[in-house]
Amino acid sequence: MTKKPYVTKKQVEEIAKTYPTPFYLYDEKGIRENARAVKEAFAWNEGFKEYFAVKATPNPAIVSLLHEYGCGTDCSSKTELMLSRAVGITGHDIMFSSNDTPPEEFAYAKELGAIINLDDITHIACCEEACGGELPETMSCRYNPGGVFQMSNGIMDNPGDAKYGMTKAQMIEAYKTMMQKGVKYFGIHAFLASNTVTNEYYPKLAGELFELAVELKEATGADIRFINLSGGVGVPYTPDGTPNDIRVIGAGVEKVYNDILVPAGMGNVAIFTEMGRFMLAPYGALVTKAIHEKHIYKEYIGVDACAVNLMRPAIYGAYHHITVLGKENEPCDHKYDVTGSLCENSDKFAIDRMLPKVDMGDYLFIHDAGAHGYSMGYNYNGKLKCAELLLKEDGSVELIRRAETAKDYFATFEGTDFYKKLDI
Amino acid sequence: MTKKPYVTKKQVEEIAKTYPTPFYLYDEKGIRENARAVKEAFAWNEGFKEYFAVKATPNPAIVSLLHEYGCGTDCSSKTELMLSRAVGITGHDIMFSSNDTPPEEFAYAKELGAIINLDDITHIACCEEACGGELPETMSCRYNPGGVFQMSNGIMDNPGDAKYGMTKAQMIEAYKTMMQKGVKYFGIHAFLASNTVTNEYYPKLAGELFELAVELKEATGADIRFINLSGGVGVPYTPDGTPNDIRVIGAGVEKVYNDILVPAGMGNVAIFTEMGRFMLAPYGALVTKAIHEKHIYKEYIGVDACAVNLMRPAIYGAYHHITVLGKENEPCDHKYDVTGSLCENSDKFAIDRMLPKVDMGDYLFIHDAGAHGYSMGYNYNGKLKCAELLLKEDGSVELIRRAETAKDYFATFEGTDFYKKLDI
Repeated sequence: MTKKPYVTKKQVEEIAKTYPTPFYLYDEKGIRENARAVKEAFAWNEGFKEYFAVKATPNPAIVSLLHEYGCGTDCSSKTELMLSRAVGITGHDIMFSSNDTPPEEFAYAKELGAIINLDDITHIACCEEACGGELPETMSCRYNPGGVFQMSNGIMDNPGDAKYGMTKAQMIEAYKTMMQKGVKYFGIHAFLASNTVTNEYYPKLAGELFELAVELKEATGADIRFINLSGGVGVPYTPDGTPNDIRVIGAGVEKVYNDILVPAGMGNVAIFTEMGRFMLAPYGALVTKAIHEKHIYKEYIGVDACAVNLMRPAIYGAYHHITVLGKENEPCDHKYDVTGSLCENSDKFAIDRMLPKVDMGDYLFIHDAGAHGYSMGYNYNGKLKCAELLLKEDGSVELIRRAETAKDYFATFEGTDFYKKLDI
Repeated sequence: MTKKPYVTKKQVEEIAKTYPTPFYLYDEKGIRENARAVKEAFAWNEGFKEYFAVKATPNPAIVSLLHEYGCGTDCSSKTELMLSRAVGITGHDIMFSSNDTPPEEFAYAKELGAIINLDDITHIACCEEACGGELPETMSCRYNPGGVFQMSNGIMDNPGDAKYGMTKAQMIEAYKTMMQKGVKYFGIHAFLASNTVTNEYYPKLAGELFELAVELKEATGADIRFINLSGGVGVPYTPDGTPNDIRVIGAGVEKVYNDILVPAGMGNVAIFTEMGRFMLAPYGALVTKAIHEKHIYKEYIGVDACAVNLMRPAIYGAYHHITVLGKENEPCDHKYDVTGSLCENSDKFAIDRMLPKVDMGDYLFIHDAGAHGYSMGYNYNGKLKCAELLLKEDGSVELIRRAETAKDYFATFEGTDFYKKLDI
């Protein structure tokens, strides 16, 4: 697959007149088409719901857009719950999936009517106490099978080393305890591998969870209403990767559903997902301008964005494809390190990357930054985070989050003598 | 060396009544003693100045405290320059060392009278233009020798792969160009290795830079006023490490100074340093409370801090020593993963760490978090950053930065309809 930007150089030049680079640019059209595809891929399941992982792109405009396609929110903290509530997403349209949870967040989740997904058996008592002695009618538990999770294509992960979830014995005990405490409806949740680029992950995970559901039902008599496959469906960041086909994935889950749950009389169980990366990564880009070129022992292009805006290359060595706008058809015959301005040598968006000759003022479109991009931003070196823009289907652009200012950076000193002396 | 906390459990219990955990706690006494030792170690050099790397701990109270010992600031961005100015540090007490620099920041640095350290030869023109056509009277250039930098104890780094600095030929050219443009006084800056725990680094680096200074003076006739050894002097994070002895380091630099610079008639050159980690890391701790214990395939202690407060373990796998307050003398006979609440399995402050039995409510003192701790914090998962406190010499505690609130988290939406609907 070639990775094509969803804007032209001309469009970016126009946008930059109002919103200086760097900025995040999200593609409404792509987000909508993909959300529709996800909905269709699981249309066979009546109760299906995608709970968008807010942590991937915690922007109200994005969350609202996905809500049009029936998506709820997967929240992991109080502020994410607040965001959901403010955009009108409450009740069972929220899954609160957290670990090492601050007790007061259980209380707030209950207040909003969210489905609470317990990470640990000890959280039953913690949650009950935080919720004023009464658990919600519907509860979910997170499962961790332990050991190693391996798929035939070699992708593997180590649930046994992960801090999340309960053992099978604990799941059974948790269900029994909660039934005694009056909980009526149950769910199962598990996350076993991150950013899988294979149509096999969800079906394989679903198979394990469906079998667990049958076993749990038999062991406890619990009324299991949903199974949450969580996240883990990823995107290929390199241009040679083959993207997941959500329709194939949906059909794969349907098959195991029909093989395992239906014969067990559990054909009414709803399937939930909590995708973040798959819903948003390809439909967001970091757009930045080349402002310096440097020739020492290597060739460097310095841009006006840095790891503050997109941290994945710096901390994971993650590959993000780069298109030099207006030079889409020129040969990639120059080798560059593309750098940001942090005093960290890891602050490079690309190392030894073959690109067309980059001239000062060129716009670079950094692909697949729509998830875990802005949201992982920090303010190291005192740098400020940039704006987020939505490229609408009609070609217009909407500011969906303003850029940070020095005032934001110093906000935690407001009211002090120091703050008064600042030049803001 | 044993790592001992500078507070007792009793003190923390008292502090936590006013400032709930987690919080950063800095040790005024330790900061002062160390700053004094640094000053004394380089007292042989009349012009010596430590420029504290603001990026390590960008807190005005800390910067002011160090300023009492003559420390200036090493700034890498506009907000860091603003912070300096607001605490009364201006002029040559500021070094502006940046790379891939936004041109407008050169202008602001000049406005404050800071010494500007150019990272690249192309920045001469950029800086000149940004500064209204006139460079400051004093300028510094950052040097990158290329190749590999190796010390006898095995510590090495690859300047040839680093994005920073100029080649020797470029340094000569840069000096000549700037002399033609009216610059009168010059400096040299280089950073070749990070967090070295050896008394050998500064002397070895100094030797290379002093030779370069002699060569540069001969080649250009430039009036070289200072040599900036930058940062790189580190601290041992594990309890078995031997800390650097700044007096030995100072004496080591003095020796090469006398061997190289004095005979070349350059005995008036000032030595500058830009330490962050060495000045602050051991004198700051993240104090957090155990709020969950989890028994699955491993034993977990969940605390109320997470990677948002201290990112180094999560992103670098960095070791930070942990003391369970009040249990300093109990045997470390329990093996735990100490986790935060982020939906990232890497959010663990310790893995397979032997500690005394941890009970819920115990306070954990996470050592050596005084530098690159708070400053690298982010808001992933919508989590908020904690407060910073200063433990004064008299045992009292001062709030030197308040904790973030939801209002701070959502500040970039202020004025929007969404913001109005938030419950803040």
